[in-house]
Amino acid sequence: MTTTHPAGFLAAGVPAGLKSSGARDLALVVNQGPTYDSATVFTANRCKANPVLWSQEVVKDGVVRAVVLNSGGANCYTGPEGFQTTHAVAEQVAGHLGIGAIDVVVCSTGLIGLANPRENLLAGVDAAHAALAADGGQDAAEAIMTTDSVSKTVVVEGAGWSIGGMAKGAGMLAPALATMLVVLTTDAVVPAAELDQALRAATRLTFDRLDSDGCMSTNDTVTVMASGASGITPSPDDFTAALTQACSDLAMQLLKDAEGADHEIAITVLHAVSESEAVEVARSVARSNLFKAAIFGNDPNWGRVLASIGTTEAEFDPADLDVAMNGVWVCRNSTPAEDPAGVDLKPREVSVTIDLKAGTERATVWTNDLTHAYVHENSAYSS
Amino acid sequence: MTTTHPAGFLAAGVPAGLKSSGARDLALVVNQGPTYDSATVFTANRCKANPVLWSQEVVKDGVVRAVVLNSGGANCYTGPEGFQTTHAVAEQVAGHLGIGAIDVVVCSTGLIGLANPRENLLAGVDAAHAALAADGGQDAAEAIMTTDSVSKTVVVEGAGWSIGGMAKGAGMLAPALATMLVVLTTDAVVPAAELDQALRAATRLTFDRLDSDGCMSTNDTVTVMASGASGITPSPDDFTAALTQACSDLAMQLLKDAEGADHEIAITVLHAVSESEAVEVARSVARSNLFKAAIFGNDPNWGRVLASIGTTEAEFDPADLDVAMNGVWVCRNSTPAEDPAGVDLKPREVSVTIDLKAGTERATVWTNDLTHAYVHENSAYSS
Repeated sequence: MTTTHPAGFLAAGVPAGLKSSGARDLALVVNQGPTYDSATVFTANRCKANPVLWSQEVVKDGVVRAVVLNSGGANCYTGPEGFQTTHAVAEQVAGHLGIGAIDVVVCSTGLIGLANPRENLLAGVDAAHAALAADGGQDAAEAIMTTDSVSKTVVVEGAGWSIGGMAKGAGMLAPALATMLVVLTTDAVVPAAELDQALRAATRLTFDRLDSDGCMSTNDTVTVMASGASGITPSPDDFTAALTQACSDLAMQLLKDAEGADHEIAITVLHAVSESEAVEVARSVARSNLFKAAIFGNDPNWGRVLASIGTTEAEFDPADLDVAMNGVWVCRNSTPAEDPAGVDLKPREVSVTIDLKAGTERATVWTNDLTHAYVHENSAYSS
Repeated sequence: MTTTHPAGFLAAGVPAGLKSSGARDLALVVNQGPTYDSATVFTANRCKANPVLWSQEVVKDGVVRAVVLNSGGANCYTGPEGFQTTHAVAEQVAGHLGIGAIDVVVCSTGLIGLANPRENLLAGVDAAHAALAADGGQDAAEAIMTTDSVSKTVVVEGAGWSIGGMAKGAGMLAPALATMLVVLTTDAVVPAAELDQALRAATRLTFDRLDSDGCMSTNDTVTVMASGASGITPSPDDFTAALTQACSDLAMQLLKDAEGADHEIAITVLHAVSESEAVEVARSVARSNLFKAAIFGNDPNWGRVLASIGTTEAEFDPADLDVAMNGVWVCRNSTPAEDPAGVDLKPREVSVTIDLKAGTERATVWTNDLTHAYVHENSAYSS
């Protein structure tokens, strides 16, 4: 039941006529309290969509009572009128719920530069409000799908409390920059400041480590709302662990549904001097088109891995690097080692392990391969 | 006659058995003086090939008397034995010419992690020395081709002196990281320090602004040698202008021969606060797979341009950006402007113009589109 699994939440997903298919395209998730604590992280892109500009103001006081989301248009770079549309949608939700618009987060996804039809959105909000239900989470999860082939939901159980969630996004590989939208709910009692710490800790290790194609969306939003309806206050460590588990689960669902991808690739860097350097090295490999195309071709091309590592500022000795692919150490001490013919790249899941031999820290970044289908998806359709 | 156009140079290109096709694969360019001034720039990749490690030492004193180049193997990450091979090749050249090996630059290109057969290389050097000729420049240019579909050469005439050059590299789009190797010659009298300044000024605006796929080679080398044989000392400005012209000509030849590319894309950023910020913004767009795939699909998707700009640290107002594609201002003040349907992306040459409205500086970066052929070239062949 996703976002409606924890106590204190209602949700709905309805068709508002934004998707030409007539499928559900507007979702509403409402926190019924008794608490309204929240935390949100947004895209780091400086070119932000109107719903992000609006929601950044909404979340400042740590109180969010509802999240309204639409697919079918990103409402990004649509000018003052686009911002007014976002505001009108928040007001419409607030009017139905008897709350202030400033407590309503708005998320949109779709083509940049395309205005969303305001009347459709407002009528959609009316329909969604009428459809709000304690088991509406699945409908909401379906309403935010764009090029996703499956809806993405999660439930993590705590001791007398739980976390629910939904996500959309086909990796970052889909047309139109594949906005990643995530709504998480919990009936635990968690004050906003603590929720913020937990969310940042969780996203740092999960969504922030997904790097399907290096392209950063203008609309990404991850919101968590705590209703406190269970009456239980978990320890910060327990809650952070559960939230990280929920985010990790959703992140892997995004990775596996990446459009056009043939492989999920985990790039793990060992023995870096810092976690951030481990991430930097792993990300450089994750963004190498030559490496990603080689994996698509089932070619264990470790030369392209080394060449990517060499573009970073991380601490390591270029003459003393080890690289394994699917557990076969094809490169030791920066020279050829085990036979690359022993690396079977046919399975979807691929692991690349890089030993920098410089420190004690490690990190993993997940990416996909570069395929004909990726080029097709992102060139053949206007998006 | 390329590198042998200026007075004082001999060159040769011979088959040494490194290419399975039996084509020419070893080139030698010799400066006969009377001066031996030189300057060289290398890849910024920290993972450098053995010939780069060797040649970095060679160029330190500003004296280079010969450049020997081979295709068919990058000699990168081949361990101490690979370095010894590079050294042996330099010694072989030096022995024939009666000079020191420390004045011989060595360049290699091909697969990383593959040792070059030393005997073939040494026999190739013997054959190349025997074939050295005052009109050998074209043979040399052909011997350094790998996936290049045409040889790349240039001649720029000064007042009584000239510059010649050859280059290899299929953009950076070819298999095996597409090493870019460039040898430039001049019969002008130019002291090494001045040559170094001129080369850095020229490459900064030309080869450094090519960014076909964001992947940095382990072997890139650009060397210029001045024989002084014309007896003429041009002004530093005149020489730098001519060298920049020669580098620009070769860079555009590389761009146009980029494997798998359907479009050459010039991304120009106007009104940045600094040239480096203009380059940063242009490069971010040049590295967006989503933007590059859109151009392949003839889709004037300016949303993907804005989303890339937003990932940079450059100074600009996200709400006040203008973007033109092939001269059509599809985005003004960060809102839709002229109809994108008026942008004809069928011709190979595409221009994207971004007005940051923040300062007075500008820069252009050149890239290619992301195509099925790119994925094919870089996945279907082990390389």
